[in-house]
Amino acid sequence: MQKYDKREKISYTLGTTLTFELLLRKPECATKIYISPKQKRDETYEKLVKLARSNNVKVIENNEKIFGLADKENVMVIGEFNKFSCELPNEKSHVVLNNPSNMGNLGTIVRASAAFDIGGIAIIRPAADIFDPKTIRSTMGAIFSTPFKYYNSYEDYAKEFPTHNAYPFMLKAKTTLPEVKFQEPCTLVFGNEATGLPDDFLNIGTPVIIPQSSKVDSLNLDNAVSIALYTYTINK
Amino acid sequence: MQKYDKREKISYTLGTTLTFELLLRKPECATKIYISPKQKRDETYEKLVKLARSNNVKVIENNEKIFGLADKENVMVIGEFNKFSCELPNEKSHVVLNNPSNMGNLGTIVRASAAFDIGGIAIIRPAADIFDPKTIRSTMGAIFSTPFKYYNSYEDYAKEFPTHNAYPFMLKAKTTLPEVKFQEPCTLVFGNEATGLPDDFLNIGTPVIIPQSSKVDSLNLDNAVSIALYTYTINK
Repeated sequence: MQKYDKREKISYTLGTTLTFELLLRKPECATKIYISPKQKRDETYEKLVKLARSNNVKVIENNEKIFGLADKENVMVIGEFNKFSCELPNEKSHVVLNNPSNMGNLGTIVRASAAFDIGGIAIIRPAADIFDPKTIRSTMGAIFSTPFKYYNSYEDYAKEFPTHNAYPFMLKAKTTLPEVKFQEPCTLVFGNEATGLPDDFLNIGTPVIIPQSSKVDSLNLDNAVSIALYTYTINK
Repeated sequence: MQKYDKREKISYTLGTTLTFELLLRKPECATKIYISPKQKRDETYEKLVKLARSNNVKVIENNEKIFGLADKENVMVIGEFNKFSCELPNEKSHVVLNNPSNMGNLGTIVRASAAFDIGGIAIIRPAADIFDPKTIRSTMGAIFSTPFKYYNSYEDYAKEFPTHNAYPFMLKAKTTLPEVKFQEPCTLVFGNEATGLPDDFLNIGTPVIIPQSSKVDSLNLDNAVSIALYTYTINK
């Protein structure tokens, strides 16, 4: 077992909580769990091993080598799983991330999307890797409960969901977020961290701006998404 | 010049944009700027040098050694400044962060607080270091426009601002965020990333919960703060 490789078909959950989420929500994808010799043989250990075995997931103990994956973290448990694909539900609202580049942001947005029970996330390439263990960690396990799908272009996504109403979030938009009357099902669209959405999106659906002071250029991407998801959720 | 040391009285802005923010918003604290030999002698360079000189800030060129500070980043410009202290304005609303531990979160919250023009941020120790260059980077320069002050306890903060109305954000709160009628001036209080606020805060002011699904344990701290600040701002 080596370091995570984006091109391979497997990835890893680093840590006990994430590995529990994997076994509880996507047991069919889990292949092995590794337990460090430093992990106490306590109640958590017993639960983990029982859950793994009941799902026919191999438990590998005391294999020090693999914990190199976890870098400096104090990781006692690692899960190994087959990468999976999801379909986005047609009847529910979606988030579209156009070229997100930061794994921490991507993971946090998956977490916020789960918190607001969004139907799923479309990720337009080029984009950060949702299966990188760093992204998985920042989802706090929400990667296993929120559908996501990669697309090569926004057009590919839009063709698949022609009845969704698009709300591109852009600093050049005229409509402010408090004014929006969301029409279901919605697609909330967000651009890259550094560059935002291209101007073309001004001609798509209802472009929206989150009102903000001139003291900053913009909000952090995951903050903008969270504010939008919260506002959508309480107004729908 | 060495690596950043928390105990020292100076810190650094890593990068051109942050260094401009320093020179524009806190020129009285800036002491030196370092310019890498790799920095093109272009219009940005001319502006930077002119701005520094007009503020009596020493410009040091071609000193390769100091760029070790910047780790792997492609940093061409570094600003050096004296750490400063701020007072929080009494008439405006505040954010209180109780024991924030993550520098990225702290920086992003400073950025969001500037975006929503909050009066200032009280940071209750133990807490992440706002002057660490990593925190400064994640503020995107907002550290130079948003007042902040460290306190040893929430009580110390509350004694200084007895007429502020506290809204502690807690998963155990009964009042949901959409129900809150904010009474000015407000103090929006948030706990540590892993542990939230202690139960004592249930007896302070109006505890508030951001409604969220059971799919996640909680929102990321900076996401929760952003949602609260946005909601406060549009309803005040």
